[in-house]
Amino acid sequence: MTILLDAMGGDNAPDASIKGAVKAAKEIKSQIILVGKEEVIKSKLKEFYGTEDISKISPNLKIENATEEIVMEDIPTQAIKQKKDSSMVVGFRMLKEGKADAFVSAGNSGALLTGATLLVGRIKGIDRPALAPMLPAYKKSFMLIDAGSNTNCKVENLVQFAQMANIYLKNTYGIKEPKIGLLNIGTEEHKGNELMKETYKALTEKSEELGIKFIGNIEGREIFAGEIDAVVTDGFTGNVFLKTVEGMGKLIKRTLTENLKKNIFRKIGAIGALPSIKALSKAMDYKEYGGALFLGVKKPVIKAHGSSDERLFYTTLKQAENFAKSTAIEELEKEISKM
Amino acid sequence: MTILLDAMGGDNAPDASIKGAVKAAKEIKSQIILVGKEEVIKSKLKEFYGTEDISKISPNLKIENATEEIVMEDIPTQAIKQKKDSSMVVGFRMLKEGKADAFVSAGNSGALLTGATLLVGRIKGIDRPALAPMLPAYKKSFMLIDAGSNTNCKVENLVQFAQMANIYLKNTYGIKEPKIGLLNIGTEEHKGNELMKETYKALTEKSEELGIKFIGNIEGREIFAGEIDAVVTDGFTGNVFLKTVEGMGKLIKRTLTENLKKNIFRKIGAIGALPSIKALSKAMDYKEYGGALFLGVKKPVIKAHGSSDERLFYTTLKQAENFAKSTAIEELEKEISKM
Repeated sequence: MTILLDAMGGDNAPDASIKGAVKAAKEIKSQIILVGKEEVIKSKLKEFYGTEDISKISPNLKIENATEEIVMEDIPTQAIKQKKDSSMVVGFRMLKEGKADAFVSAGNSGALLTGATLLVGRIKGIDRPALAPMLPAYKKSFMLIDAGSNTNCKVENLVQFAQMANIYLKNTYGIKEPKIGLLNIGTEEHKGNELMKETYKALTEKSEELGIKFIGNIEGREIFAGEIDAVVTDGFTGNVFLKTVEGMGKLIKRTLTENLKKNIFRKIGAIGALPSIKALSKAMDYKEYGGALFLGVKKPVIKAHGSSDERLFYTTLKQAENFAKSTAIEELEKEISKM
Repeated sequence: MTILLDAMGGDNAPDASIKGAVKAAKEIKSQIILVGKEEVIKSKLKEFYGTEDISKISPNLKIENATEEIVMEDIPTQAIKQKKDSSMVVGFRMLKEGKADAFVSAGNSGALLTGATLLVGRIKGIDRPALAPMLPAYKKSFMLIDAGSNTNCKVENLVQFAQMANIYLKNTYGIKEPKIGLLNIGTEEHKGNELMKETYKALTEKSEELGIKFIGNIEGREIFAGEIDAVVTDGFTGNVFLKTVEGMGKLIKRTLTENLKKNIFRKIGAIGALPSIKALSKAMDYKEYGGALFLGVKKPVIKAHGSSDERLFYTTLKQAENFAKSTAIEELEKEISKM
């Protein structure tokens, strides 16, 4: 398997992406190709590891030169069309041509999603691919789909999001009957806005035909109780949800740390509680789960978190290998073609 | 001032509502009237305080008999029209007739909102009243409006939500220039769905005219950083946000408690950390802030949390007295009539 990593994308790139790749290369069998400005990468390799020769650092690391760079301010469609020698466009081309099995980038989300859709292409029958991160809940994680790719959705899109989540979780996570719910503001079927009411109806009617275990509406309260495997929603609501979870996670970490520093008594007490606090922080940190899969395109593409550090790049690369090894995409192609 | 409390509404009523009222009556000068089934209330008074005579428990407590009860399963509009002797209808009638200055209920939300709109009436010029709770952020709280009253909104509604938040926070919280943001999925003006894009434009154009300090779009991440005074959104998105905050809060409490119990070492450590954990729990508990104001109707109405215990009923009654004493509603009437 060959995993491509956009070495230039993300707040902490290229340092964090390079270090994360080196760390991952020690553990995984797949080849990892750092796609980006070759002279920048080589200079970093020299700085961190004493050599510009990447094969000396690890036999399964390579560099693919990409002389241009898509930055956060770039307008997605324009950037993808104009910067033909950027990591993203080079990476997507390699993916499309079968020269690699997965692509990871922490860069400009819009460009990643637009580029994947245009250059790798949608699975036949999928109207809109969706961003699907795994988020933490009580003792297990759940998939949120769509977490922000499609701001305005139709009922058909949400039904397909449910299908994609179902197949991916069965196939790659080995969950027999993933419990899938619709993010709503009440459990009764008449609850929510027009889109949710119509989607509730459609999912109820089609659940048997599609082999989906649709458990109905689910509210923010129940989601974290750990009884759900996937939460379906439109990209706007999903992104608000995602960023709310992030924001609260940060607030908790901040409040906990500050409170613990407040006085000596607490400091003494904190020593023992630190494992608990750390366990909580870890459980709360959605970043523990890697990046967001872009489900619905023909090859594995993962959006790594923009602020990925070395450890998160490492985690996301391992996640990419799992995705590349799975047959989730083939299964999805088969399912959709049956419709 | 006279505060009405629906004694029958809420998961823990009438026990919690009665006890909360007795606790509040010791501290606040206002009269508190428990509205509900007289014989049930009296029997509880006998059980808890040894007497059926409420004036013996406190000189500023009274009972107003209401023989019917609106339950959680009731359809709002029907219940309000048919159960004319329920706490809610009786209470709204008293409010409208000037026999009381505020009404608090932890019962059926839909019935409360419908009843307040129909029986107390909207402030002239307000299209849709909105539910506005205060939520915790870093070191201070912020108002969320609309937290779930209006599932489908127009631009005009969101602009009015911003106006109502602005006036209430200036008047009752004494904030000179409340910073008001639009809950969105990116800071740039072109971000979000159609409603958010249009509302962004409208608020930008009208902020000077309306005297609103509109700080633009705000994401879930920034909200908890403590730099915002009010977050404006439609009722669907607001309710998803609210329930997500609740759900995460519960998960954190649960994870923290379980982790701390896990082994003796941790238990020992926990003793010292317990104040920190409690401080965090407290800070995270949106219920510390009372109930949700129903802004836009002619008299103060507060939706207390459905699971209010004695302490929360007590907090919400104090919040109701503050609301009744403030001139926020008169200010809002003046502002809106200028338009």
